[in-house]
Amino acid sequence: MASFNTLGSPAPVAGIRLSAVSAGIKTPGRLDLVLLELAESSTVAATFTQNAFCAAPVTVAREHIERCAPRYLLVNTGNANAGTGRRGLEDARASCAALATQLNVAAAAVLPFSTGVIGEYLPLERLLAALPDAVSTLSDSAWTAAAEGILTTDTRPKLGSRRLQLDGVDITITGMAKGAGMIRPNMATMLAYLATDAAIEQSVLDSMWRSVVEQTFNRVTIDGDTSTNDAALLIATAAADNAPLSDPELEQFEAALFDLALELAQALVRDGEGASKFVTVKVSAAASEAEALDVAYTIAHSPLVKTALFASDPNWGRVLAAIGRAGLSDLEVGKIRLYLNNVLIACDAGRAPDYTEAAGAAAMAEPDIEIAVELGRGDDEATVWTSDLSYDYVKINAEYRT
Amino acid sequence: MASFNTLGSPAPVAGIRLSAVSAGIKTPGRLDLVLLELAESSTVAATFTQNAFCAAPVTVAREHIERCAPRYLLVNTGNANAGTGRRGLEDARASCAALATQLNVAAAAVLPFSTGVIGEYLPLERLLAALPDAVSTLSDSAWTAAAEGILTTDTRPKLGSRRLQLDGVDITITGMAKGAGMIRPNMATMLAYLATDAAIEQSVLDSMWRSVVEQTFNRVTIDGDTSTNDAALLIATAAADNAPLSDPELEQFEAALFDLALELAQALVRDGEGASKFVTVKVSAAASEAEALDVAYTIAHSPLVKTALFASDPNWGRVLAAIGRAGLSDLEVGKIRLYLNNVLIACDAGRAPDYTEAAGAAAMAEPDIEIAVELGRGDDEATVWTSDLSYDYVKINAEYRT
Repeated sequence: MASFNTLGSPAPVAGIRLSAVSAGIKTPGRLDLVLLELAESSTVAATFTQNAFCAAPVTVAREHIERCAPRYLLVNTGNANAGTGRRGLEDARASCAALATQLNVAAAAVLPFSTGVIGEYLPLERLLAALPDAVSTLSDSAWTAAAEGILTTDTRPKLGSRRLQLDGVDITITGMAKGAGMIRPNMATMLAYLATDAAIEQSVLDSMWRSVVEQTFNRVTIDGDTSTNDAALLIATAAADNAPLSDPELEQFEAALFDLALELAQALVRDGEGASKFVTVKVSAAASEAEALDVAYTIAHSPLVKTALFASDPNWGRVLAAIGRAGLSDLEVGKIRLYLNNVLIACDAGRAPDYTEAAGAAAMAEPDIEIAVELGRGDDEATVWTSDLSYDYVKINAEYRT
Repeated sequence: MASFNTLGSPAPVAGIRLSAVSAGIKTPGRLDLVLLELAESSTVAATFTQNAFCAAPVTVAREHIERCAPRYLLVNTGNANAGTGRRGLEDARASCAALATQLNVAAAAVLPFSTGVIGEYLPLERLLAALPDAVSTLSDSAWTAAAEGILTTDTRPKLGSRRLQLDGVDITITGMAKGAGMIRPNMATMLAYLATDAAIEQSVLDSMWRSVVEQTFNRVTIDGDTSTNDAALLIATAAADNAPLSDPELEQFEAALFDLALELAQALVRDGEGASKFVTVKVSAAASEAEALDVAYTIAHSPLVKTALFASDPNWGRVLAAIGRAGLSDLEVGKIRLYLNNVLIACDAGRAPDYTEAAGAAAMAEPDIEIAVELGRGDDEATVWTSDLSYDYVKINAEYRT
């Protein structure tokens, strides 16, 4: 039973102020520059992309967070500042320095984040010109505007809140995320910011965040393309004046945090580029979690499975083919059982005796589809979430730069 | 300098007779059943899919080829007989037995092959009813009809011939292949049959074929989905009455064989489902061939790279992002150089100083595109061939069963 409440609209988090303004980075007039201010008492846990070609702001944010406690997060959309070499690093550092001067903090107290087109230089002048406006409009109630201001090809903002009482103190967790393509996070995802007013020690915050990210943001994939700019942050402002969390309160907090992170991660998939289906791929009875993940991702990335999902076609042979090429040694195909939304589709290396095309078609007509695979090899399991491959995915990605 | 000739039309191979008839397996009236007869003197080298969920005919063909020398190849399109469990195996064996009875050979002298929809039972009665017609129409000149009879979503037959003189004897090699989707061969590809009238000892034939397949059919990918039914065969009928080949003639023969296999493999890609581009991905200056292949396949399978290719958009940031997620340890991105059709696009972790968007756009407008990556890590290299990801790929695969 959940010991926390899901709030209908994003709740402010004491110790966090935000703003979202228009700098005209790519599209004139749209919100594209977001600023977060963190109370001085905050601790921050951050995970970043494992893509070796990481963007300039990722490199700079990693440097800065080593140097001092973050006080400001500066996020732009419309330009990823990735594949921009030395000049990209200079631009990211210049944006932090300019903001730090206005706010009288160290440059390293500002973390930069960018999302958008890869390979173009940041329009630094326009970004710098918008900073005073971003600073002057900071407020604790701008979560929705901020969630809009970080979007790229997303069609809607993704944000949510959880509230719980720990040791008699009311604690809030609010978070936002963006990302609709180039999504296969590897230790982080394309821009997620969660914040709580709870006080949590740095080492506790770090290990909890790694564990939650691994099971939420790191388990969604839209197209298998790990981004150059992924970043997911958890901020604990300590403004709630609770004693630093430890068990059993910590466990309750983590449950609420996990729930919110999973909602945001799944919201990325639901708003995936061209997505018309929300697909859960659950692989169980595996010999290890690693092989369960191998099978789940092979299914989730198969263009043939994804186009069949788009067509609502119970073409389960494509799922079997994907399992068969996942690279598991000594796979006994006769032991595998395949379900679509709880309908047993295949067993004994073929169609299940009771299966009918009508039952399969009914399962595939649903907007939410679970592909469940029992491997018959052990007790481990893993679940990933993905979307289908539609005309609109091709359209969005063929036209993205034009 | 090539020491062989490329023939304009497929030449008969002494010792091989073929036929192509209509059994009405899926579409009434189309050629869908192909029979090849091999002279008794023939040796055969075969490679099959590594997909653990291999189709029933693959299992049966593997059994039969262990038992005796193949005399007949029976190929149907319209139904893959894959994911069909025990009944699928029985159907494959029954088709071989029926043909063997008509021709008075052992059932194991017949190898079955199927391609088409996965997960549906073979319409065995219709297939058996067409066998007498297939037998009675065998001729040495039916290569083009046979190449048509094995197609599925392919738009055109793929076949070719090479001729060379070895030790004063005229030798012919003719081959055909099919495959347009579910193409990422793993030690074999979706149905390829090459035949020569040369005499070649079994062990020599086997090792030569493995080596040629590894560098040709195993280096093309359309969608990364390794098929359940892949098979590639090389037949040497010995009808040319040459002495069994050994060096240096063997080397000349292998050069001609390689050239034909590469032409057929590349023809698969050019006719890939929805393909509008033929893309060569060449990765050089790698620390090993394995890592060169990892990078090449990561680029070739990236949906974002493939949609950019479809759009003729020189969105090279997506190529860099793919390289960065290919899993190479200690990758120094500053050492990488990226070329599109010989235009240097990126170096020093960013855009090349002389690069212009106009030059990139001109390169991408070509129907044939080479993406060349120098990793700056060593002397190994690898090349793979692929196609783009278009609306038509989605359309073909969303509508394939309907």
